[in-house]
Amino acid sequence: MSSGHPHASGSVVAFCGGIGGAKLALGLTHVVPADKLTIVVNTGDDFRHFGLHVSPDVDTVLYTLSGRANPETGWGRAGESWRFMETVGDLGGETWFALGDTDLALHAVRTARLDKDDTLTAITRDLAAAMGIEAAVLPATDHRLATVVETDAGVLPFQRYFVERKCAPVVRAIRFDGADTALPGERVQAALTAPDLSAIVICPSNPYLSIDPILAIPGMRGLIEAAAAPVVAVSPLVGGTAVKGPLAKIMGELDRSLTHASVLDHYDGLVGTLLVDRMDAPGTADRRMRIAPTLMTSLADRIALARCVLEAAAEASQ
Amino acid sequence: MSSGHPHASGSVVAFCGGIGGAKLALGLTHVVPADKLTIVVNTGDDFRHFGLHVSPDVDTVLYTLSGRANPETGWGRAGESWRFMETVGDLGGETWFALGDTDLALHAVRTARLDKDDTLTAITRDLAAAMGIEAAVLPATDHRLATVVETDAGVLPFQRYFVERKCAPVVRAIRFDGADTALPGERVQAALTAPDLSAIVICPSNPYLSIDPILAIPGMRGLIEAAAAPVVAVSPLVGGTAVKGPLAKIMGELDRSLTHASVLDHYDGLVGTLLVDRMDAPGTADRRMRIAPTLMTSLADRIALARCVLEAAAEASQ
Repeated sequence: MSSGHPHASGSVVAFCGGIGGAKLALGLTHVVPADKLTIVVNTGDDFRHFGLHVSPDVDTVLYTLSGRANPETGWGRAGESWRFMETVGDLGGETWFALGDTDLALHAVRTARLDKDDTLTAITRDLAAAMGIEAAVLPATDHRLATVVETDAGVLPFQRYFVERKCAPVVRAIRFDGADTALPGERVQAALTAPDLSAIVICPSNPYLSIDPILAIPGMRGLIEAAAAPVVAVSPLVGGTAVKGPLAKIMGELDRSLTHASVLDHYDGLVGTLLVDRMDAPGTADRRMRIAPTLMTSLADRIALARCVLEAAAEASQ
Repeated sequence: MSSGHPHASGSVVAFCGGIGGAKLALGLTHVVPADKLTIVVNTGDDFRHFGLHVSPDVDTVLYTLSGRANPETGWGRAGESWRFMETVGDLGGETWFALGDTDLALHAVRTARLDKDDTLTAITRDLAAAMGIEAAVLPATDHRLATVVETDAGVLPFQRYFVERKCAPVVRAIRFDGADTALPGERVQAALTAPDLSAIVICPSNPYLSIDPILAIPGMRGLIEAAAAPVVAVSPLVGGTAVKGPLAKIMGELDRSLTHASVLDHYDGLVGTLLVDRMDAPGTADRRMRIAPTLMTSLADRIALARCVLEAAAEASQ
């Protein structure tokens, strides 16, 4: 890319998990034309609950991009009601995973179509369209891939670790069941091999829990490495700790230092540029690091960071 | 039985479907001690919708016996809300089968346990207990058994015929998929072989759609025939037509006359006494028929009919 203008400079593929990643994805929708933007979302958190297929990260992205996200929780829908959940409790059912009355509809519609052998990709496309989302939101794979956490309290399926146990058990290792036989979604492959691809973005999601399941899909790393476009990641660390979630705890448990260098190491040569927050400037020795306002509070913050990402990609391409 | 007192005269097993049958089942709970009453419910209507296992007749019985039933619809829960269903519609999902926000909880809790290989019998027992129901509510079988309707519009799964198509297609035949390999539930078998069994009741449910699926289970008829207790059925016809539902239409389509004699014929020697409504008195030639107030509008009507059923059983045993 030779253009200094980050807008409309080509197509963009962004990888993300849920809350933090979805914020940057929303920012990107404001600076990249919808037909040029592909959001590739982690499906390692997916599970069946009450018989329903829940795709937590895909849901969060759909709700965030369509303005339906609950701003207080970061997950689920705004204006939610909980009569279903209360009744589940009355009937002696499991209440550790909160499903709102309107959120349930998304899982139900998805499950009905999965049970008719539709792909998660096709279903997500139609759900996104029904919600008025124009950018392409793609599950990383249509195959089963389940994040499993090996802890001092035993081997836990992701949601049991993350939601039910509130990340309290000490993590020993993280694995992705089914990853060895999964394949990148066809539209993911197409987006990563598009001739006009100008940036691959790794959102500030948890590298271990949200990005690794995507990278664990055979062929995914190869597609990224083969792309001519620069890879720009946003560090999920700010001021020496994680903005949200269990990242700092997990990095400690896995004996990783809580540094941007550690994040770069983790991505193992894949990332050309790592955007790190302004407040971490003194520690940014690696020439691959670049300062940016990575803490996103407002919509303006999300858009500003998205612009920085595109600028970094444009510079890296020069 | 030699006692003229219908109460506490022994144990009672009642077979029923949904709405009409559940009304008499409720009446029976008022005149039979809870530990002596077993309600055996049709599962031919069961199906998976949105991935959830729905047992419409079991649900209606649970809601009816626990005072939760919606008095206006006859199905579903009182005080229901519909945010789930509205959102399903917004997302382009199927809305032909209405599932309320609180009703959904029952299906979700059931499905979660079925997916862990619990039996429908055990799950229904716990749901009934959570709802404060003391009588035994038993699905007729723990095996899969699906009512399928052969019509002039093709072969339709029961709910597609009954709810989606509103019984409009002309019925040619009714079959019960899986019936050949099903077995009566263990507790159903125990109830039908109890030494103190004093009455077997066939509620005024649709004989073709609600009772036949139960009788189609291999061994069920034999258990009824082998029981020493009399079999008392309540005719679902009043004044020459069905009280509710598609019964009259189906009987016409299957070339059956809309008469109590036709109902007796249908049960093919199984029924010793058929209770028919007072208004049909002139037509009751068969000595197996007995007059009773079978139209149930109020709770008092349900209890009065339950008493008549037990009286008829007591007389038949004398």
